Amino acid sequence: MKVAFQGEIGAFSEEAACVLFPEAEVVPCLAFEDVFEAVEAGRVERGVVPIENSLFGSVHVNYDLLRAHNVRIVAELNLRVRHNLMALPGVTLADVRQVLSHPQALGQCRDYLRRHLAHAEAVPVYDTAGAAKMVATQGRRDAAAIASRQAAAEYGLHLLAEGIESNRRNYTRFLALAREADAPVPEGVPCKTSIVYAQRENVPGGLFKSLAVFALRDIDLLKIESRPLVGHPGKYLFYLDLAGSLAQERVRRALDHLGEIAAEVKVLGSYPVGETTA
Amino acid sequence: MKVAFQGEIGAFSEEAACVLFPEAEVVPCLAFEDVFEAVEAGRVERGVVPIENSLFGSVHVNYDLLRAHNVRIVAELNLRVRHNLMALPGVTLADVRQVLSHPQALGQCRDYLRRHLAHAEAVPVYDTAGAAKMVATQGRRDAAAIASRQAAAEYGLHLLAEGIESNRRNYTRFLALAREADAPVPEGVPCKTSIVYAQRENVPGGLFKSLAVFALRDIDLLKIESRPLVGHPGKYLFYLDLAGSLAQERVRRALDHLGEIAAEVKVLGSYPVGETTA
Repeated sequence: MKVAFQGEIGAFSEEAACVLFPEAEVVPCLAFEDVFEAVEAGRVERGVVPIENSLFGSVHVNYDLLRAHNVRIVAELNLRVRHNLMALPGVTLADVRQVLSHPQALGQCRDYLRRHLAHAEAVPVYDTAGAAKMVATQGRRDAAAIASRQAAAEYGLHLLAEGIESNRRNYTRFLALAREADAPVPEGVPCKTSIVYAQRENVPGGLFKSLAVFALRDIDLLKIESRPLVGHPGKYLFYLDLAGSLAQERVRRALDHLGEIAAEVKVLGSYPVGETTA
Repeated sequence: MKVAFQGEIGAFSEEAACVLFPEAEVVPCLAFEDVFEAVEAGRVERGVVPIENSLFGSVHVNYDLLRAHNVRIVAELNLRVRHNLMALPGVTLADVRQVLSHPQALGQCRDYLRRHLAHAEAVPVYDTAGAAKMVATQGRRDAAAIASRQAAAEYGLHLLAEGIESNRRNYTRFLALAREADAPVPEGVPCKTSIVYAQRENVPGGLFKSLAVFALRDIDLLKIESRPLVGHPGKYLFYLDLAGSLAQERVRRALDHLGEIAAEVKVLGSYPVGETTA
């Protein structure tokens, strides 16, 4: 099975793809759009894209691509973002004069760097996996990178320290995409359904009414987010995840009811509630 | 007046600070936390931080800092993120062999680069302002940077092309922070009020009920977003912006009512609805 992801080998998206599909052959893509196109065209069986991060919010560009492309969400994963310090084999903490990583990763590891590498300079580069690649390919014995375990393995670096981020609550939620929905999930497996919809003109209190179609049927909401439509003041898109699957009649009825109140309702997929990695 | 922002001189946050407070002296800070601390300690009169981007979502870390610090939102601005191509004076498009910028900016300008700079290599660096700084300080006559107008002015680069991004709907919303609320906004000026709250245990349908306190009083919602609390499955924080100000009795009553249904309600501020730059 081929699984497309955006980024370099060693990026967190590759880690997510490998956790979701351990047997798969991963296919790196330049842009998110390329992942969607590869899935839609059948060049790969699955695509894996980030949809929200616990510190940095929803990836609206991927919601836009979900609306524009004919793909379905078939699985999800909450990947703990763990930052690790890595260097060439034989290099020790005392040798390290520079630490290379993405500025966000450098910031998230500030406490560790202050305590253990106060003598080293933090050097921002564009990408965590790219930092590991630079240390490895330039044979730098005076430098270390902060990146994923995957990146260390890929570029032959050894881990000087694991999980060095100050905030342990950094998770990215990834979605697995396919051209067609999978077979319905067996009963008893907790499921969620993701939808997007827009406000319908001339429905006062439209957001409140749109949520009522679920509340009146005791369907729990797992995510709700409004997104202002730039250039259309007062118009919004809504992202909603609800507990349950399209296989349940009350979910189908609620979505029918939603169609009376909201515009451009699109069901993105029903899929099992995903794991959270430790 | 001193205004703190996070990032280098020439960053989009500096541009936002200058639009909001044209007369102010800007104070660059390393981290968002430093901006909040400078405001809280009274070392600066105002702080400016990004809170959401139209393509990349809410900046949850700044919501966390808003909850943790004793500051108030006193203004907002929707800044159009415009990417510009810049180089040393005298350098023309034909001289450019490399284009330096943040990977997101390079991606957002892909169409322009394909049409006008197909012969040049895209070089990712950690920051748009940093790209401009590198071209200038290294005296590179074979390179251009993609960054803000502010960065061009700061580093003495001239603009080869303006507004070269493919997606014209890239806006970042910035908040201005102060230690104390400003005097109440005069009646007739459209206002919004931002709040954060958590679910109260044992209130079934809590989200729906919390929105009812506003719907029942015909108070319009301008933003609603749930954020899962990592490590507490099924628990959420909610971000809400509503139309109206604390000076209005029905807004104060709605917030009192919300206290019966939700936990940890914090009012972040009432402020005039902000401008959107062209």
